[in-house]
Amino acid sequence: MPRGRMSFRLTILGTSSALPTSDRYPTAHVLNVHERLFLIDCGEGTQMQMRRYHIRFGKINHIFISHLHGDHFFGLYPLLSSFNLMGRKTPLHLYAPSPVEELVSRHLSDFDINLGFGLEIHSLASRDLTLILNDKRVEVFSFPLRHRIPTCGFLFREKRAERNIIPEMIGKHCLTIAEIALLKRGEDIIREGGEVVSCEAVTLSPPEPVSYAFCSDTAWFPELSEYVRGVDLLYHEATFGDDNENLALRTAHSTARQAATVARDADVKKLVIGHFSARYKTADILEKEARELFAATEAAREGTSYILG
Amino acid sequence: MPRGRMSFRLTILGTSSALPTSDRYPTAHVLNVHERLFLIDCGEGTQMQMRRYHIRFGKINHIFISHLHGDHFFGLYPLLSSFNLMGRKTPLHLYAPSPVEELVSRHLSDFDINLGFGLEIHSLASRDLTLILNDKRVEVFSFPLRHRIPTCGFLFREKRAERNIIPEMIGKHCLTIAEIALLKRGEDIIREGGEVVSCEAVTLSPPEPVSYAFCSDTAWFPELSEYVRGVDLLYHEATFGDDNENLALRTAHSTARQAATVARDADVKKLVIGHFSARYKTADILEKEARELFAATEAAREGTSYILG
Repeated sequence: MPRGRMSFRLTILGTSSALPTSDRYPTAHVLNVHERLFLIDCGEGTQMQMRRYHIRFGKINHIFISHLHGDHFFGLYPLLSSFNLMGRKTPLHLYAPSPVEELVSRHLSDFDINLGFGLEIHSLASRDLTLILNDKRVEVFSFPLRHRIPTCGFLFREKRAERNIIPEMIGKHCLTIAEIALLKRGEDIIREGGEVVSCEAVTLSPPEPVSYAFCSDTAWFPELSEYVRGVDLLYHEATFGDDNENLALRTAHSTARQAATVARDADVKKLVIGHFSARYKTADILEKEARELFAATEAAREGTSYILG
Repeated sequence: MPRGRMSFRLTILGTSSALPTSDRYPTAHVLNVHERLFLIDCGEGTQMQMRRYHIRFGKINHIFISHLHGDHFFGLYPLLSSFNLMGRKTPLHLYAPSPVEELVSRHLSDFDINLGFGLEIHSLASRDLTLILNDKRVEVFSFPLRHRIPTCGFLFREKRAERNIIPEMIGKHCLTIAEIALLKRGEDIIREGGEVVSCEAVTLSPPEPVSYAFCSDTAWFPELSEYVRGVDLLYHEATFGDDNENLALRTAHSTARQAATVARDADVKKLVIGHFSARYKTADILEKEARELFAATEAAREGTSYILG
C-alpha cells in the first residue's frame, strides 16, 4: 500500500540569516506530522509567512526555538499576540533554551498581555540528546549545537505505525475487533480449534517511519553527525561559502561545505541548507559547494515543501 | 516655478490593526521630507516592507512610535538589529512614550546587543502639542491621543523655503552673494546711489509649505481636530465601521465615520484611513462610510505613496 502522502511534510518559511533581504525571511520551518504542526524557530514575519503559505494557526500546539537570537525569535511575541486575538484556548507548548521563561513572562508583563490560553514553557538545557516530546505519532529530541549562546538542534522521529489490515480480509476471516487489534500490532491469531490467521496474510506493512533533523545555528563539530545519523532529511545552516570560512569560524556558523560534511558523515538521505548570509544574492554557489561533498543537497527557498516517506 | 515634486512624500507600509492578514502589515509609515526619512510606527515586518518599497535604510535617522502596543512596535528591535549588522554609525533618534527607554535598554541587555551607533531616546509625555524636532526643513510636534495606554499623534510641518532667485537676474543686476542671500529672504536691495533691486522682480515665491498629521490609535474626542487643523494630509485610524461603533468605543479606537468627522472639523485637505480590523476583507465599506462625511477620503494600501504640495 502506498504511503499516505503529506503525512510528514516540512515547509520552509524563511532562509535568511540575521539580515533579511527583499526575498528572504529569517528562519522558520513548519513540520506537519500527521496534522500536528510543529513550528521550528520564529524569526520576524513568521506569521505573515504562515498566512502566505496557508499554514493553519490553530494546528500549531508546539513551538521549538533553537536559540534566543533575534532572527530566530523576534516573530514569537507577535505570534503569541495574534493567537490571543484570534481567541485561542488550546494550550501552547514552547521549547527553548533558558532564559526563555524569564524573557517571555517579562514581555507579557511589560505589554500587559493576558493570554487567554495556557502557555507551557519548557526550558531546554542544550546538553546531550534529550527526549522533549513524545506522543502517539512522533518523538522529538533536542541536542546541543555549538553557537555563541546556548543553542539546540531538534530531531523529529516518526513512530512506526501499526500494520494496515487489508479490508476484504475482515469479512473473509470474520475478524473480530479484538483480533484486528492484535493483527495490526503484528501478532498472528490462533483460534480455538487451531485455525491460524497469519498477520502476514491479512495485513500490509506500514510505511517506514521517517525523520527530520534541524541544525541552526552552529559551528561545525564532529559529534554533530551522531545526533542526526541516518535521518531522511537534514536541515543544516550554511551561512557562508568557502570564501568566508574564517568568518564562519569567528561567528560560530557553518559553511555550505561543512553542512555537507555533516550530511555525508551522518549518512542522511537528503540535505537542505539555509540561513544564507545576505552577501550571497543567490544560494547557487553555496548549493554547488555543498554538492561537491554531498550530491543530494538542495538550497532552501521560501515556500518550498519537502514531503518525506 | 513648479514645486519640486517628491520633496514631501508619504509611503504607507502597513494598514492592518493588531492582527495582520495575508495582504495587510501592521502600522508603519515613511515620510520623506527633502530626503530626510521619518519612520512613523514600526509594526512587525516593517523592515521587509521597507525593502519591498525601496526605502533606504541609511536615510532614516528619526523613528517615531505612537504607543507601545506590539502592532506599532514589534518591528523596532529587528530593525535596530539590522541597522547594527549593516554597520550603521549615524546616530538614530527614537521618539516614543514612556517607558520606551527602559524597554529598549533592557532588550539590548537581554540580547547582549552592543549598538555600533548612538541611539538617542526621546521619551514623550503625550500631553499638549509639543515641538519634539526642529531642523532646517521641518518641525515635528507630538500631541496626545486617547487610547488604552499613553499614545501620541505626530504633526509634521514643512518650513517655508527661501524665495527662488531667477537665474538670469543674477547677471542682469550683477547680484553679489550677500545681495542674493537678502533677496532670497524676501528683502529688497537698495544700493549706494539709490538703485533698488526689488525682491518681487528677481525672485519667485517658494511653494507653500505642506503638513502631515498622523493619528493612531485613538478614540474620537472633539479637541483632536484642533491639533491637526488645516493639514494637507491627515492619516487617521479607522479600525471599525458603523457596524462596530460600540466595539470602537470599548477598545478606544475610531470608526471610519469618526475619522472623517475629525477631517471635516479640522478642515484638512485630504484624509487617509488605515489600521483596518481583520474582520473587513476589503476597506471599501470603511472608505464609503468616511466619504459620506468627508469626500476627500482614501483607504490606505500597502506601498501607496502620497506626494504633497
